[in-house]
Amino acid sequence: MIKAGIIGATGYAGGELVRILKNHKDVEIVWYGSKSYIDKRYSQVYQNLFQIVEDVCRDDNLSLLAGQVDVIFTATPQGFLAGILTEEILSKVKIVDLSADYRIKDVAVYEKWYGIEHKSPQFIKEAVYGLCELNRSQITADTRLVANPGCYTTCSILTAYPLVKEGLIDADTLIVDAKSGTSGAGRGAKVQNLFCEVNENMKAYGVASHRHTPEIEEQLGYASGSQVTINFTPHLVPMNRGILVTEYASLKRKEDGTLPSYEEIKAVYDKYYGGERFIRMLEKGVCPETKWVEGSNYVDIGFVIDERTGRIVMMGALDNLVKGAAGQAVQNMNLLFGLPEEEGLDLIPCFP
Amino acid sequence: MIKAGIIGATGYAGGELVRILKNHKDVEIVWYGSKSYIDKRYSQVYQNLFQIVEDVCRDDNLSLLAGQVDVIFTATPQGFLAGILTEEILSKVKIVDLSADYRIKDVAVYEKWYGIEHKSPQFIKEAVYGLCELNRSQITADTRLVANPGCYTTCSILTAYPLVKEGLIDADTLIVDAKSGTSGAGRGAKVQNLFCEVNENMKAYGVASHRHTPEIEEQLGYASGSQVTINFTPHLVPMNRGILVTEYASLKRKEDGTLPSYEEIKAVYDKYYGGERFIRMLEKGVCPETKWVEGSNYVDIGFVIDERTGRIVMMGALDNLVKGAAGQAVQNMNLLFGLPEEEGLDLIPCFP
Amino acid sequence: MIKAGIIGATGYAGGELVRILKNHKDVEIVWYGSKSYIDKRYSQVYQNLFQIVEDVCRDDNLSLLAGQVDVIFTATPQGFLAGILTEEILSKVKIVDLSADYRIKDVAVYEKWYGIEHKSPQFIKEAVYGLCELNRSQITADTRLVANPGCYTTCSILTAYPLVKEGLIDADTLIVDAKSGTSGAGRGAKVQNLFCEVNENMKAYGVASHRHTPEIEEQLGYASGSQVTINFTPHLVPMNRGILVTEYASLKRKEDGTLPSYEEIKAVYDKYYGGERFIRMLEKGVCPETKWVEGSNYVDIGFVIDERTGRIVMMGALDNLVKGAAGQAVQNMNLLFGLPEEEGLDLIPCFP
Amino acid sequence: MIKAGIIGATGYAGGELVRILKNHKDVEIVWYGSKSYIDKRYSQVYQNLFQIVEDVCRDDNLSLLAGQVDVIFTATPQGFLAGILTEEILSKVKIVDLSADYRIKDVAVYEKWYGIEHKSPQFIKEAVYGLCELNRSQITADTRLVANPGCYTTCSILTAYPLVKEGLIDADTLIVDAKSGTSGAGRGAKVQNLFCEVNENMKAYGVASHRHTPEIEEQLGYASGSQVTINFTPHLVPMNRGILVTEYASLKRKEDGTLPSYEEIKAVYDKYYGGERFIRMLEKGVCPETKWVEGSNYVDIGFVIDERTGRIVMMGALDNLVKGAAGQAVQNMNLLFGLPEEEGLDLIPCFP
Repeated sequence: MIKAGIIGATGYAGGELVRILKNHKDVEIVWYGSKSYIDKRYSQVYQNLFQIVEDVCRDDNLSLLAGQVDVIFTATPQGFLAGILTEEILSKVKIVDLSADYRIKDVAVYEKWYGIEHKSPQFIKEAVYGLCELNRSQITADTRLVANPGCYTTCSILTAYPLVKEGLIDADTLIVDAKSGTSGAGRGAKVQNLFCEVNENMKAYGVASHRHTPEIEEQLGYASGSQVTINFTPHLVPMNRGILVTEYASLKRKEDGTLPSYEEIKAVYDKYYGGERFIRMLEKGVCPETKWVEGSNYVDIGFVIDERTGRIVMMGALDNLVKGAAGQAVQNMNLLFGLPEEEGLDLIPCFP
Repeated sequence: MIKAGIIGATGYAGGELVRILKNHKDVEIVWYGSKSYIDKRYSQVYQNLFQIVEDVCRDDNLSLLAGQVDVIFTATPQGFLAGILTEEILSKVKIVDLSADYRIKDVAVYEKWYGIEHKSPQFIKEAVYGLCELNRSQITADTRLVANPGCYTTCSILTAYPLVKEGLIDADTLIVDAKSGTSGAGRGAKVQNLFCEVNENMKAYGVASHRHTPEIEEQLGYASGSQVTINFTPHLVPMNRGILVTEYASLKRKEDGTLPSYEEIKAVYDKYYGGERFIRMLEKGVCPETKWVEGSNYVDIGFVIDERTGRIVMMGALDNLVKGAAGQAVQNMNLLFGLPEEEGLDLIPCFP
Repeated sequence: MIKAGIIGATGYAGGELVRILKNHKDVEIVWYGSKSYIDKRYSQVYQNLFQIVEDVCRDDNLSLLAGQVDVIFTATPQGFLAGILTEEILSKVKIVDLSADYRIKDVAVYEKWYGIEHKSPQFIKEAVYGLCELNRSQITADTRLVANPGCYTTCSILTAYPLVKEGLIDADTLIVDAKSGTSGAGRGAKVQNLFCEVNENMKAYGVASHRHTPEIEEQLGYASGSQVTINFTPHLVPMNRGILVTEYASLKRKEDGTLPSYEEIKAVYDKYYGGERFIRMLEKGVCPETKWVEGSNYVDIGFVIDERTGRIVMMGALDNLVKGAAGQAVQNMNLLFGLPEEEGLDLIPCFP
Repeated sequence: MIKAGIIGATGYAGGELVRILKNHKDVEIVWYGSKSYIDKRYSQVYQNLFQIVEDVCRDDNLSLLAGQVDVIFTATPQGFLAGILTEEILSKVKIVDLSADYRIKDVAVYEKWYGIEHKSPQFIKEAVYGLCELNRSQITADTRLVANPGCYTTCSILTAYPLVKEGLIDADTLIVDAKSGTSGAGRGAKVQNLFCEVNENMKAYGVASHRHTPEIEEQLGYASGSQVTINFTPHLVPMNRGILVTEYASLKRKEDGTLPSYEEIKAVYDKYYGGERFIRMLEKGVCPETKWVEGSNYVDIGFVIDERTGRIVMMGALDNLVKGAAGQAVQNMNLLFGLPEEEGLDLIPCFP
């Protein structure tokens, strides 16, 4: 039995971790860390877990926790883990970090986009970017620190990755128009996230400045072999869960001047994702819908070639709290401990 | 491995049955019956099940199906099963009927409220009313036909049952004000169920005439030992899933003229539900919320005594597609086949 | 031109007052008072009013304001107005108070239900309860202080009033099950009102203890001629605007033992509301829906007689920010200044 | 008093026309045409108009109607008006057509994208494209036929128009990612538009094939002086009203290789829209939100320059039923009859 601790267990991603891990047959949660609800019963914070979780919330003492568990999930604000992580902690326990602290390899880029100083850059190189479908081989029993990707980034990268990797699109023409449910904004009490402000409303935010931009650019840069600069625009949608990305890029024409065919593009996606348990390439003509993946660890991907403009429109959908956060974190944990990657993640999407 | 067939698999309750049974380790679905989508792949009707269900929709030939499976779930319109059920079919297969055809023992009451003739009243007596928490002992390997209770009724009955049974409330003062998400209205294409008609809107409907009324009255009548007549008012709420009932009744005063205390009422609830896996008696002062049971087989129940009026306000919440339909049907199936009652129903509510 | 000031202009009711008054041809708003946004442009707080309102938010200095305007609307927390109101202020200006401070005549009842000391009980007697349809004759050029009714109370009282007044129902059997959109909870940043907590969810709250209870009881008590004690249960619904009440009461039987007929009940409603501009008695068999009154000052009322139980089910719907707050406040202002009661209130409900 | 008739009065756009025209002081609606509800009272189809509209629905006999009114609004399916319009009709009455029949000047383009034969191409040339802000001078007392623009197109064109017109962006790099509330899908009873299918869901549709594409291209082509080909992707959002477009285009660099500044771009927008009553250029850093224009005839526009990619992100928001349909139709009618353009359109956005 793997003993797990969660720091930041009372945020939405933390709550989803609990939902998933409680049905994981090889894991026992022994620490529900929370900054705001110490000594309160966890099921009073999340009444859906009444009679399922009996534990009381504890503090977020990472050092103490490190000696008591096999793995720690940190679902904490940016900078928290970087501020307290030490070699001693990492020598005792594996960490799956759901924050952005170790996702970006270039510390200057991190500090510029996040506007904070990175307090432990010495661990950045060691951290593995936990996008399992791309970096599976690096997430092993020897790995100590996994930087779990962001919700927007997981969806944005996976939707375009095969075509960038194989050079089928011009990566610098890539535009990612992303739409997210409101749970991505977290459980903090802010006027802008009140029901009446979000409901019956839609808006873009963080235009040309959202922090997930450099994370997408870095990973797609590895795929393309050169630096990639994109437009990424997130939008807030009046629904609880789900991210939909609509990505536009110019297709590279073949030597005869024609565009690649649907079948040729599909073959490239299948080459990379054909064996993936959690990526579903939809059939021709089918556009992904967020509801079809809700509650599950799936990413659904579809695409349409626009012969008129020479562009491809790629679309991806996932549940931001599952494949975009807690589900992917468990997927990473499974890899870290040599378990089947889908253990505890047999979550069938819930409709309607 | 239990072989199961579903008639009416493409309605919302049918889809939920599939979601639950696909994760039930002792069941295999071998027949996805549908009136509207014959020969279409089931996952094209419910894209959430893409790559999970490969089967094609078949017709709703009950006789043919009876020879091929161990259990049939009928999630069909009122009158359908009554119109085709035969002794020969029942001799071959167990049936869990999610329609109202065999729920009401008095055929005249059924015909009055449903406005249709009952075509096979000979099976009514045999049918067990499948509210497991009340009738568990009658749902056994010998049972052939289970009348799975309705969504409103399951919630309404369970919320009041112990107090009616123990005579703590005057059953004829019972008023049930019920609120339901829109999936209860089914997947038929009707203007009144369009997004723009339901969203940002709320209404009562079927006032003093809703078909679930006699079903509640019959079951509470058994509990009280005499006929019960109630007011039941359903409301449509702009959400997908969930039923909340708010029930009002006059408490019977004790010999000394005082009202029973919170603790006395709570003790009665605990007597009946203390050991129940799927009923959660909430703590004092906590009112149930539909979101806390979403996607699960739980019923959450709370109550408040109003000393000023001498009434008790009882509240219950469940997911209409799970405990109110498919989940309860699987719970019944488990009992029919001697499986643990919670098999396949370890569904943790999803929040948010 | 009537000069108006608003204290509490940046709450939802305050914002709605602005929306209505900006289209009122006889009123000019000269003071947008706010505790939280002093010196900020009002249109930055409510961007819907960009280029419509150019003013900057000012403080909530009632004394100063009293000398500058003809009428003050106070859309402020309980106790605020009572804490600062003076004879000098009232000698200069008319006040329409949207809070509860002067609604309840018995100061002990107020202090018990609101849990605060009333700081200026000397004005309670003078204050007119501004439910125009009931108290129109008392709201005149001589009136200085109007206690604008609450949203739940306006809907609850108007729905039952004629039948209580005429003694057709037993007032002590009255049960009010009320459902409200979330704007009624205000614009304060609270976790419980976040989009993800309210959306896809429904719950009762304040059961047997909600502050609007004594206000309903007092007004219906005047109608019935004796004290009335009721059950009132509010519920939170995932929509922005709208209140729906479902009210249950036992009909008094006629001398011959029969219940009053639909036509007899309807005639009583028509007697009181037949000439009312803002009350619409729906046709037989039609249940009110909140969407049909959204954005308008209407109250829609319908009812069904249940012959089986001898009860009547009365239903009323209104927009909590209009007839339940700002619209009614303007209706009162019109009466205070001798304007046509519907001036500025020709608001056609918006659908969908 | 202008006498108006509406053909297609029972669709959502028709209902919104009624809401607006009932408060227009110079117009009287004398004909509520409907295909589905002939002889039914209009207020039974739209209960929000109960006691406001007393008329009964009539048929859609355009010829008969032409002799009785001054203006006809046709809110009808594609091809309907083209199939019945005659010179005789146009000689008697002005028509504002809310369908697409006369929007596209090249009949071959119309027939290709709409998949139907155009039955009266002889009127295409005469029809004025009723985007008032661009074509105001052509909409006069002499105009007989106005092709009222579509909802997506109004928003898409106005958001980019000044920059295309002045050559600040490369029009062929333009990508329009549009999001719409569900009322845009109409009131037809379709499974895909049921509450449970749309709610908590988001998807793209009509990718690279939506019929509004050529309409946007044609109008922006006029602005740029040469043919424009774009990507246009509509998305369905779980809200009733509102369209938000996010548009991406490469800015043309100035001679010195630098990008135009925020102020330079803003000056261009102000040049075209500075005097416009219904276009609000938002302040720097403010992104439009659909809720801020709900119920009104406004278009809100904002933009952000991305120095990193050299692109501009333009954003526009409107209410699809008002400025995207009925409001714009009334704006056109005002121009046709020489009334102030804003007559009857003083609609303040409703928030929340």
